[in-house]
Amino acid sequence: MNIRRMLVLVVCSAVAGGWSACLADEGLWLFNKPPLRILKERHGFDPSTAWLEHVQKSSVRFSTGGSGSLVSADGLVMTNHHVGSDNLEELSTPDRNLLKTGFYATTRDQELKCEDLELMVLMTIEDVTERVHGAAPKRTAASIAQAARRKVMSAIETEAEQRTGLDCQVVTLYHGAWYHLYSYKRYTDIRLVMAPEESIASFGGDTDNFEFPRHGLDVCFFRIYENGQPLKPEHYLQWSKQGAADGDLTLVSGHPAVTQRLNTVAHLKFLRDIEMPATLENLWRREVQAQTFAGRSEENARIISGESGGVANSRKAFTGVIAGLLDPSIIREKLKSERELRLAVERDSTHQAEWGDPWDDVAVALETYQRFFDRYSALEGRRRALRSDLFAIAKNLVRLAEELPKPSGERLREFRESELDSLYLELFSPAPIYDDLEKYRLTTGLMALAQMLGGDDPLVAKAMGGLSPSERARALVSETKLKDVEFRKTLAKGGKQAIAESNDPLIRLVADLEPETRTLRQRYEDDVESAERDAYAKIALAQFATRGQDMYPDATSTLRLSFGPIKGYVEDGKPVAPFTTIGGAFARMEERKGVDPFKLPPSWTQHKDRLDLTTPFNFVCTADIIGGNSGSPVVNKTGEVIGVVFDGNIQSLVWDIAYDDAQGRGIAVDCRAIIECLRKVYDAGALADEITKP
Amino acid sequence: MNIRRMLVLVVCSAVAGGWSACLADEGLWLFNKPPLRILKERHGFDPSTAWLEHVQKSSVRFSTGGSGSLVSADGLVMTNHHVGSDNLEELSTPDRNLLKTGFYATTRDQELKCEDLELMVLMTIEDVTERVHGAAPKRTAASIAQAARRKVMSAIETEAEQRTGLDCQVVTLYHGAWYHLYSYKRYTDIRLVMAPEESIASFGGDTDNFEFPRHGLDVCFFRIYENGQPLKPEHYLQWSKQGAADGDLTLVSGHPAVTQRLNTVAHLKFLRDIEMPATLENLWRREVQAQTFAGRSEENARIISGESGGVANSRKAFTGVIAGLLDPSIIREKLKSERELRLAVERDSTHQAEWGDPWDDVAVALETYQRFFDRYSALEGRRRALRSDLFAIAKNLVRLAEELPKPSGERLREFRESELDSLYLELFSPAPIYDDLEKYRLTTGLMALAQMLGGDDPLVAKAMGGLSPSERARALVSETKLKDVEFRKTLAKGGKQAIAESNDPLIRLVADLEPETRTLRQRYEDDVESAERDAYAKIALAQFATRGQDMYPDATSTLRLSFGPIKGYVEDGKPVAPFTTIGGAFARMEERKGVDPFKLPPSWTQHKDRLDLTTPFNFVCTADIIGGNSGSPVVNKTGEVIGVVFDGNIQSLVWDIAYDDAQGRGIAVDCRAIIECLRKVYDAGALADEITKP
Repeated sequence: MNIRRMLVLVVCSAVAGGWSACLADEGLWLFNKPPLRILKERHGFDPSTAWLEHVQKSSVRFSTGGSGSLVSADGLVMTNHHVGSDNLEELSTPDRNLLKTGFYATTRDQELKCEDLELMVLMTIEDVTERVHGAAPKRTAASIAQAARRKVMSAIETEAEQRTGLDCQVVTLYHGAWYHLYSYKRYTDIRLVMAPEESIASFGGDTDNFEFPRHGLDVCFFRIYENGQPLKPEHYLQWSKQGAADGDLTLVSGHPAVTQRLNTVAHLKFLRDIEMPATLENLWRREVQAQTFAGRSEENARIISGESGGVANSRKAFTGVIAGLLDPSIIREKLKSERELRLAVERDSTHQAEWGDPWDDVAVALETYQRFFDRYSALEGRRRALRSDLFAIAKNLVRLAEELPKPSGERLREFRESELDSLYLELFSPAPIYDDLEKYRLTTGLMALAQMLGGDDPLVAKAMGGLSPSERARALVSETKLKDVEFRKTLAKGGKQAIAESNDPLIRLVADLEPETRTLRQRYEDDVESAERDAYAKIALAQFATRGQDMYPDATSTLRLSFGPIKGYVEDGKPVAPFTTIGGAFARMEERKGVDPFKLPPSWTQHKDRLDLTTPFNFVCTADIIGGNSGSPVVNKTGEVIGVVFDGNIQSLVWDIAYDDAQGRGIAVDCRAIIECLRKVYDAGALADEITKP
Repeated sequence: MNIRRMLVLVVCSAVAGGWSACLADEGLWLFNKPPLRILKERHGFDPSTAWLEHVQKSSVRFSTGGSGSLVSADGLVMTNHHVGSDNLEELSTPDRNLLKTGFYATTRDQELKCEDLELMVLMTIEDVTERVHGAAPKRTAASIAQAARRKVMSAIETEAEQRTGLDCQVVTLYHGAWYHLYSYKRYTDIRLVMAPEESIASFGGDTDNFEFPRHGLDVCFFRIYENGQPLKPEHYLQWSKQGAADGDLTLVSGHPAVTQRLNTVAHLKFLRDIEMPATLENLWRREVQAQTFAGRSEENARIISGESGGVANSRKAFTGVIAGLLDPSIIREKLKSERELRLAVERDSTHQAEWGDPWDDVAVALETYQRFFDRYSALEGRRRALRSDLFAIAKNLVRLAEELPKPSGERLREFRESELDSLYLELFSPAPIYDDLEKYRLTTGLMALAQMLGGDDPLVAKAMGGLSPSERARALVSETKLKDVEFRKTLAKGGKQAIAESNDPLIRLVADLEPETRTLRQRYEDDVESAERDAYAKIALAQFATRGQDMYPDATSTLRLSFGPIKGYVEDGKPVAPFTTIGGAFARMEERKGVDPFKLPPSWTQHKDRLDLTTPFNFVCTADIIGGNSGSPVVNKTGEVIGVVFDGNIQSLVWDIAYDDAQGRGIAVDCRAIIECLRKVYDAGALADEITKP
């Protein structure tokens, strides 16, 4: 079992979170601390400062989560179809289902404005670690230190915004060992240019998701407008005509969301035994309930398709992570590495005195968390029970009234000054809200809340208002006025008093649940999050001290650089080639008898004759990617686009906690397939010309 | 909201579990204690003893769970397609998918023998309450009394079997207030005669399941053979030529599995907050995982289709029950009725002295249960994690070796002498076992076990054997010899020693888990089940004393008689007619654009012209039915078949805990549709002739 052994070896070195002794192409590297030595030694590549700036400023962050890149002189942005699908859904109506039919604006005035999408381009990164650390004297209690740091972070952001006019965020790296100020140019006039049909973007559906060989045209195009005109960006990526070949180095610039590679073993076990099982349970429920809703009519299926896909995707991803956590070799190797590091700290009296036992601090924080995890997670975060659009609007309005009077640095983080523009965009979005879907979400959400906390729980009783879940949901949706954007604006303007006086049933529901929810959130931030952050910052410093600084921090939804060659792998004893072809999609359809989700759209079957079936379609590479990297451009050494990342294979799902490249791979759409399809399937020659124009 | 009010009124009267003041057609009545007064007063129907005996002896119980009826002089048995689907699946191969294509044996020698199906016909019922009660002196501890009663029940069964040659079972009614001896004629040579395609049997799939209007031909036919010849039964049901009309009285004879209408409020809350949420979580997981497996190939979809359908069905049913339990009016009315009864007992010093406070006893038993519910339910019963065919075989073999040396009355109940024939039939069944499915079930099951109990739990560690879930599953399935029926027989014959010495990995896995599993089971039986039974028997006696004996016991998978007219209802302010037509199925297909599961099979679309589209297809009636009634014949006052029960509507799902007929309805296939389709769609005129022959 060579593969097995390789996995263990690699995991061993990966445990430290980017320890440089690692032989694999691991790492989610900072643009202001790029892996120059490794790139040079391992791949003979020595990117210039100009190269790095060009790629950085050609990269785009999507407010909806996900990555993208500027690919033309006229502000064209490429991303994944599944990154743009929320917008495609919002732009659809019962008579115009853009997810089903796809879309192409042959002229600029046909481009469709996306009401609540914003794109950000990272302009500068500045190290502000000293100032943030200076705000909290050493040996202050974690929660007090954290409050002091948040205050100064907010001040730094505000000062920088006033100075530069950019959107500024202080990013916490290594859980607080470092703080960097990221300044973005923010664009809000974004228009849809082209999207293929979902049936080819997500060809193979849940079955082929996270699998390879793969055949997905998971791509779509938006255009940034500024002052009513297409953006003329300073930087945008050139397109590679010839694409890349097996063994070529790829570089990926994107926004990986969250990794937990620095996690202690106790923390991994908490994920394995408490947090992930609870999250998965919630996903299983939501997946089944989304399908039930979708089954009732074609229109239901349309309006819930985005949610269904998202839930199934998360379910498959978390299942992969939990499978990794249940692999005894992974915990074993993590434990070994942790023991080495603890021993090194114990042996050094200075370190010992300064850091104490941060591993134990993490364990204590998690024991505390476990005591209120069920209630807290039922009300906030990934496992929360109530998650309808209207409920979310009500919750944001209630909290906005509470938070806005406070200084920015003392607010809940999502209400900080730097977040408000995005929040208002979402809160006042005219995106359609569907009564039936809202009723269904609230009915099932109320049932879930009761199942999580018990039917006689006082909080549940408040949520139910003396009615059955379905009666309550019906009443809430039919009586609320929150569907009216103007009503929302009035409430937001009215502040605390307007909220207190409002008799809107959803506002009242949220207000009833807020006291306990806020108490739990405070408890989480003070007793868990701050304590963890404090401890992990020390663990990171212990790593620097012991293993050197040639490493990368865990992902934080900020811009990172990954790299690695295009490379096949071996699975069940059989080689998996690194490229698929367009012809392979037709073969896969035939193999699965054209049954959904293996049914190519009519545009493909009609134009099959035109297509060069040998065109490379998707490829795999060892570049270290994770959720949030979706839509990241894959470039070659000269910075040309050779593809766009849209997925990782099933063996890469464990990368959340530990990278290995024995079998784990990122998956991208090949640049050649994009041009081939634009020209021959979608009659979008003008778009192809714009992209490939030198 | 008239409907709402009606529901409350009816529930109020239904709470007592068949309290005779109830105005609705409630009741799962015993054949030896039929509701003669109610039938006469309310429906002017006075069935003779001969009528009752005829219907009883024409009714059939399926070993796979479900009901049926003898419908010809040559031993033909009618049931639901979904009752026979396990057998259809077992009789299928990759090249012969009977679920997809349907089946019709035009000659007797084409009929397909079902390897592990047995049918039972109830011959006699005898009251043995006194003898069972006599075995346990009053005021004995519940668990000791229960052991004594089980011993005498077993003795009664053995004596009766020796005397009659029948299969005899003592049935516990009212949780132990009464004990009746049921004696069955048992048939094991059962052959498949006819089944339509699953696509029309379950037309509308999960979306239309538990809904009305409905269009399902959920019917199939088997034939009982005895000594190699078709059975010539003493009793079988005649077929109604004209069918029934709106308002006609229907009588249903079948085997409702479990109701919990006598449950105390504390028990209902335990179901609502602990048991049902845990069960539903498990079902959501299994439904998603079954779909994932099915999505991988057509063959995968075939071999898991039965499980998928069963899980989805249970999920929808439990969701309905939990929705009922979360309806505050239901708990409120249950509480009101309970308070009245408790007060009546408290006021009567004799009762008080004899019964104490059985409601409190139930609450105490449930508090005890809650303390080990998570572990116990992870290992045994409805929520158990490990549920592959091979694991079940291993578990039965290990337990058989342990139980067989004990006297029948001291064994686990599923190993009592009276159960052994069925157990062996299942254990030594040559039904196909699919490696890929087994590996998938064990992988997901091991992951679920770890999620339920924690990855570091010693029992989980034993289950994993130092491997990851998928590696462990692969090893278990590829190394076990339990797929070989002869190997199973040898192990069964070898008893304890053979089990102890076996190095079969699945036998060893079960043996490793058994000590804790058995301890928990013992604890459940002693501290929960016995205590509950004892308490509920007293509550039943309190009901008899206070409200009279004109009531029925909770369902126990034994033969019961229900009744009620064919009757439409009002939903969302609109009337729902009691009958659908065959033409309605075509209309529904058109409405849903023929997308699966709304795609009629080719046999239907090809023969549409032949069909009389006005033929009644499905109908609803108020007869009190529940899971296990599937396949029950619906007869008219003269005992002729007018239909076959296959479902209840969504409003009937709450009948598990409380009957109401404001909207709740049983759903049946109309006898006329069956004949119309046999003749015109399936060219099965000979079968139609056999059924309708006077």
